[in-house]
Amino acid sequence: MSQDHVAPKRRLRLGMVGGGRSGNIGRSHRHAALLDGRWELVAGALSADPERARISAADWLIPADRGYSSYQTMAADEAAREDGIDAVTICTPNDSHHAIARAFIDRGINIICDKPLTTTMADALDLVHATREAGVIFAVTHTYSGYPMVRMARDLVKAGELGEIRSVAVEYVSQYQCELRRGYDWQNDPARAGPLGSVAGIGTHAHHLAAFITGLTLTELSADLASLLPGHLLDDHATMHLRYSNGARGYLWCTTVAPGNENGLRIRVSGSTGSLAWAQEHPNHIILARLNEQPRILSRGGFVSTPSSTAATRIPSGHPEGYLEAFANLYTEIADAILAKQAGHPGPDTGYLFPSVEDGARGVRFMFAALESSQNASRFVDATPGALGKDL
Amino acid sequence: MSQDHVAPKRRLRLGMVGGGRSGNIGRSHRHAALLDGRWELVAGALSADPERARISAADWLIPADRGYSSYQTMAADEAAREDGIDAVTICTPNDSHHAIARAFIDRGINIICDKPLTTTMADALDLVHATREAGVIFAVTHTYSGYPMVRMARDLVKAGELGEIRSVAVEYVSQYQCELRRGYDWQNDPARAGPLGSVAGIGTHAHHLAAFITGLTLTELSADLASLLPGHLLDDHATMHLRYSNGARGYLWCTTVAPGNENGLRIRVSGSTGSLAWAQEHPNHIILARLNEQPRILSRGGFVSTPSSTAATRIPSGHPEGYLEAFANLYTEIADAILAKQAGHPGPDTGYLFPSVEDGARGVRFMFAALESSQNASRFVDATPGALGKDL
Amino acid sequence: MSQDHVAPKRRLRLGMVGGGRSGNIGRSHRHAALLDGRWELVAGALSADPERARISAADWLIPADRGYSSYQTMAADEAAREDGIDAVTICTPNDSHHAIARAFIDRGINIICDKPLTTTMADALDLVHATREAGVIFAVTHTYSGYPMVRMARDLVKAGELGEIRSVAVEYVSQYQCELRRGYDWQNDPARAGPLGSVAGIGTHAHHLAAFITGLTLTELSADLASLLPGHLLDDHATMHLRYSNGARGYLWCTTVAPGNENGLRIRVSGSTGSLAWAQEHPNHIILARLNEQPRILSRGGFVSTPSSTAATRIPSGHPEGYLEAFANLYTEIADAILAKQAGHPGPDTGYLFPSVEDGARGVRFMFAALESSQNASRFVDATPGALGKDL
Amino acid sequence: MSQDHVAPKRRLRLGMVGGGRSGNIGRSHRHAALLDGRWELVAGALSADPERARISAADWLIPADRGYSSYQTMAADEAAREDGIDAVTICTPNDSHHAIARAFIDRGINIICDKPLTTTMADALDLVHATREAGVIFAVTHTYSGYPMVRMARDLVKAGELGEIRSVAVEYVSQYQCELRRGYDWQNDPARAGPLGSVAGIGTHAHHLAAFITGLTLTELSADLASLLPGHLLDDHATMHLRYSNGARGYLWCTTVAPGNENGLRIRVSGSTGSLAWAQEHPNHIILARLNEQPRILSRGGFVSTPSSTAATRIPSGHPEGYLEAFANLYTEIADAILAKQAGHPGPDTGYLFPSVEDGARGVRFMFAALESSQNASRFVDATPGALGKDL
Repeated sequence: MSQDHVAPKRRLRLGMVGGGRSGNIGRSHRHAALLDGRWELVAGALSADPERARISAADWLIPADRGYSSYQTMAADEAAREDGIDAVTICTPNDSHHAIARAFIDRGINIICDKPLTTTMADALDLVHATREAGVIFAVTHTYSGYPMVRMARDLVKAGELGEIRSVAVEYVSQYQCELRRGYDWQNDPARAGPLGSVAGIGTHAHHLAAFITGLTLTELSADLASLLPGHLLDDHATMHLRYSNGARGYLWCTTVAPGNENGLRIRVSGSTGSLAWAQEHPNHIILARLNEQPRILSRGGFVSTPSSTAATRIPSGHPEGYLEAFANLYTEIADAILAKQAGHPGPDTGYLFPSVEDGARGVRFMFAALESSQNASRFVDATPGALGKDL
Repeated sequence: MSQDHVAPKRRLRLGMVGGGRSGNIGRSHRHAALLDGRWELVAGALSADPERARISAADWLIPADRGYSSYQTMAADEAAREDGIDAVTICTPNDSHHAIARAFIDRGINIICDKPLTTTMADALDLVHATREAGVIFAVTHTYSGYPMVRMARDLVKAGELGEIRSVAVEYVSQYQCELRRGYDWQNDPARAGPLGSVAGIGTHAHHLAAFITGLTLTELSADLASLLPGHLLDDHATMHLRYSNGARGYLWCTTVAPGNENGLRIRVSGSTGSLAWAQEHPNHIILARLNEQPRILSRGGFVSTPSSTAATRIPSGHPEGYLEAFANLYTEIADAILAKQAGHPGPDTGYLFPSVEDGARGVRFMFAALESSQNASRFVDATPGALGKDL
Repeated sequence: MSQDHVAPKRRLRLGMVGGGRSGNIGRSHRHAALLDGRWELVAGALSADPERARISAADWLIPADRGYSSYQTMAADEAAREDGIDAVTICTPNDSHHAIARAFIDRGINIICDKPLTTTMADALDLVHATREAGVIFAVTHTYSGYPMVRMARDLVKAGELGEIRSVAVEYVSQYQCELRRGYDWQNDPARAGPLGSVAGIGTHAHHLAAFITGLTLTELSADLASLLPGHLLDDHATMHLRYSNGARGYLWCTTVAPGNENGLRIRVSGSTGSLAWAQEHPNHIILARLNEQPRILSRGGFVSTPSSTAATRIPSGHPEGYLEAFANLYTEIADAILAKQAGHPGPDTGYLFPSVEDGARGVRFMFAALESSQNASRFVDATPGALGKDL
Repeated sequence: MSQDHVAPKRRLRLGMVGGGRSGNIGRSHRHAALLDGRWELVAGALSADPERARISAADWLIPADRGYSSYQTMAADEAAREDGIDAVTICTPNDSHHAIARAFIDRGINIICDKPLTTTMADALDLVHATREAGVIFAVTHTYSGYPMVRMARDLVKAGELGEIRSVAVEYVSQYQCELRRGYDWQNDPARAGPLGSVAGIGTHAHHLAAFITGLTLTELSADLASLLPGHLLDDHATMHLRYSNGARGYLWCTTVAPGNENGLRIRVSGSTGSLAWAQEHPNHIILARLNEQPRILSRGGFVSTPSSTAATRIPSGHPEGYLEAFANLYTEIADAILAKQAGHPGPDTGYLFPSVEDGARGVRFMFAALESSQNASRFVDATPGALGKDL
């Protein structure tokens, strides 16, 4: 982590919108922000329910006067404080991301936002443009890209270890919607979640992971979406054929109704001279196979290292790091980016690996391409992000 | 195995066409036939090269007068002998299966044939009809269906352990065509292999495995076929969306150009109340997960058993069985079926699990459905075997 | 974690002795302390080298006036401050633990100390007695006992899931001393490390893990210690027969010279009605097998839970937690214990699971029993901690 | 397999004593003998119960006149036949091995005998001497040494891939005596099984495996034997410290009372420049780690090969071979040795890897060394086979 090499000047101040309900998401953000000692959580509009917001703030030792009951007030008040927040984390249902983000962007506050970025393409593009105009940092939490071995995978591909990439197989298999459950109601409500279900909830993670590791441009896709659980209003199962600009092919499979699968995000990439495989549930290892050689088990912190994987590693090999460490890698990079911006350094595009608002918009583009294909007998449709506008 | 319960009257006599070259396939057939002591290999037209045919026959202690240099002579001579072969194994390139099979069917000799059954749909249907007319036993060696745990998987699905099936994920990932290689030339020659490459070579195994375990009828598929290795004339990579008659969805992925993958046939089936997973490279186990329970590791010969898995098992749990044992299960069942037929018992349709000529024809139908979809922007096409004719 | 249910009143103040050098140990302590937001690191005597101490303190945003160059000054100054530290972490070479701990105990400051507790039995007993007299909290960082699944294992044994325990197999296999390395010199220096090498460095972890999970009393052991790497002055390989008070048997194997092994701490416990297995490198799972049933894969946060494993879990199943989360569980429990003590609650013996100074002393007792046996042709020797004095 | 390179002249004729009861052992021997087409089973005294002997013989198509009711008759009659058996397999309870083996040795018939060789040291030495005098081939079925990857492990050690061997960890963990069971009664009867239980039944396999792979001479051992299951009269749990002539150390653990463990024979060998690990339940792979490199997964038939592993392999990588194939490798080598002897070639000591009568005697020596140590507070005792006499 860079913080050991260049000492940070101060801890950054973080606010949070949403996350205070008994849910796991806010809690994960908080642990991730705290782990490296780079952030302190000082403000929050943690719940739409004022009492829950108050209790949640107290739990986390947030001063009472900074436990807000509305994000609008929070944005205004924090922007006005001398010691206002450096960034806000948005972990609310999908349909609210856009309005909340705009409230903070418009006051020059940096953003850390859950995925999917938005529930419409127009909203996504609006956030891209607003971010660029305001000059803020906007990160989207495709957390899995923070794993050291995912970064090693990216480095290995970049270094040509696999040769020309030919095949990408990515899947995200889970059981979290095997039954209609209380507490996740909004995820089955098109008004809150948007028109896509599993593709928005987990498919976008798979899509980002493949893009992050391979660096390839997805040009076309064919998708077959289905709602397999009776009562589901949105897709809970999707398969996709993928075609990349270099001629590579692939598939993406995501589902939320597969009993026995906890959080099965896995990727395999094959090229002309090698292949690699990584699985989120065993994140400290990659299997790397070179053509005509037996596979090797690479480990985080082991004898094979790459710059970005080493930078993302805290403890020696054999001591597992997990999801929160991956998440913390994003938070620490975001802190670096904000400090650099505050110090007048070039800007956010100088080598940071955390997912940007543009990555978020590409995810939304992917969602709608899948929907279009599925509604047209799964024929291939254009999925080029470039269709979104310049630089996308 | 039934042979321990009802003593067989005699060993059956086996002939082989092809398989004598240094190739692995004939050797596998021979080990599989010998393992249970139910067959003796007594005749062969083992190679188109007479000298190689002679040496191969001698290696295997086949009498010199039954080491033939042409399958036509072999069919005629063996049919004329009092002690002629009970069945012939055909392990030659795809395009020759039809003619060879017809030569033996027409003389009333039972058939054991490699897959894909044929390289045209018309040839496949012709073999179905000829088999029915001649009343012979015709088995197609989708060997993987002989594994005890594959049979257990089928039994578990049948017994409703997974509830209503919702999702089928089957893949066959291999590295065997990462380079253009001598010795497998015919597999890259449309004139010998037919119009499909990886889909014919391994995709049909995946297709049969899914059908065998789930018992579902595949009604539609969308396929994207590609030749990724420069110089390949046939597909070496294919992805497919699968739709079943009960509303279940799935995907099939097969490729022969993924470095580091030896023989990666894997299947995962999910239903409303459970899921299971099996992988050919670790064939002695199934992971079975019931809804809202932690997964269990079932093992061959272990505390969970089903009739057909137990019948297909030779040795105690913890002592691995492998590919040849699975293959031998087919050979032993075929022997049972032939003896039953010779004894005037009802016929081959009495519960035997070995793949039939109809299964082989369904595989050919699958191949051509995939080709049609891929040639039409991957739109879904009808894949119902019923389109082939009655009983298919 | 309890902190979500009963809101803590304040963050506790932590000091650190050692840990500032480029070493990993101090860094792990810091991340573990920060993760749950229960501690702030405010003081340190981070290195014997003043410049390195200063830089390390700055890196971690420790105020300049609390970056001490000697632990004695630190103990005195912090004890005198109104806002002095609530606890000190000691992560220095083994031989210094005793003196440093005494300096803080004697000023009423709570202790978090690396293992092995001391390098002599007398020092260990002295710390036990001093701790009791001063009434401080003294935790020894057998970090592995903080893993949720280790706690689940303990709960399962306690609940009788395995029946009467019969066999304990624990091993700690590593490669970290395959070569004589700079930077770890003190670990090969009997003057700093004490008379035991691998047994002190990792064997004590294995010993504690077995005791923690099984709750059994080790009564006798037979050990064979060896220095296998030329140049090693201390043991780098040890095997032990273990005998427990209930008649159970077991073995312990530890080594630091096994290439390819990163941090291979593994335990298997068998009883009359079941068995379980856990491995530190895959810490989110336990394999649990009941007599005459197929094994089940239990996962952290999954459908099988126990009170202490659930309390030690932060994020949903399928999202791996790792070493730092386990370590953080100790830090958070220690914070709970300190706050309870400060609030006048009964004391440290009310259900906390973090290893105590008595556990540390039992580890030292174990080390010297192993040494005695090994020096006597591996004959069994008494290993009863009770021999140390009352309550041990 | 050599049979593909040098065509055998004829199938060898095999007889069997024991094995006909519903037991698994005889059946395994039969499959192993048949797999490669090198043997035919033509005679047997398959059960002490004449009716069971008759039925068993019929099941296996043994001619009625060669289904004997006593081994003495069988030895006499077969020795007198022109077409008498080339070898006899002995798969009866331990205490009968010696007398049966002598009956056949004395008539010049080659022997294939289950382990442990005998239940007394004197009997073991007697068989060694009788075998040498008679000049017969005598193989002991330590089957696990027939696995291709075990042979690769041996070759890798021999080739110096691991450097100087320092540590050997071998274990055999099973559940087969978790309950007192009918059908295995003799295994708990000192009069039939001899004075050792788990050490004789599975410990000798572990001992042979370690010796086979490492080539090291075991000089001393310390053992702790226990009968943990109430009602067991013989040991069902044993731990041992191992010391080798080159200074290497190790441990051996075996138990038959560990629920959830099917047939857990595993070995790990570490040396100065590398390590390897192999597990019987996943026999097609070795994990090989070189010093300061990440581990590699070697596979049977893969890109890393050694002469003896390749010779022991039938089918391509990725197509699992199992226990019966390992067993068949012994049978085929024994056939080669017998044919060579019949052809007047030098004798049995020309590179064959199947375990010899001397290996069997070393196993008996190991058993009694373990017993002696355990009866003497686990002090180290001499385990040098050389103490047995010349060439041992």
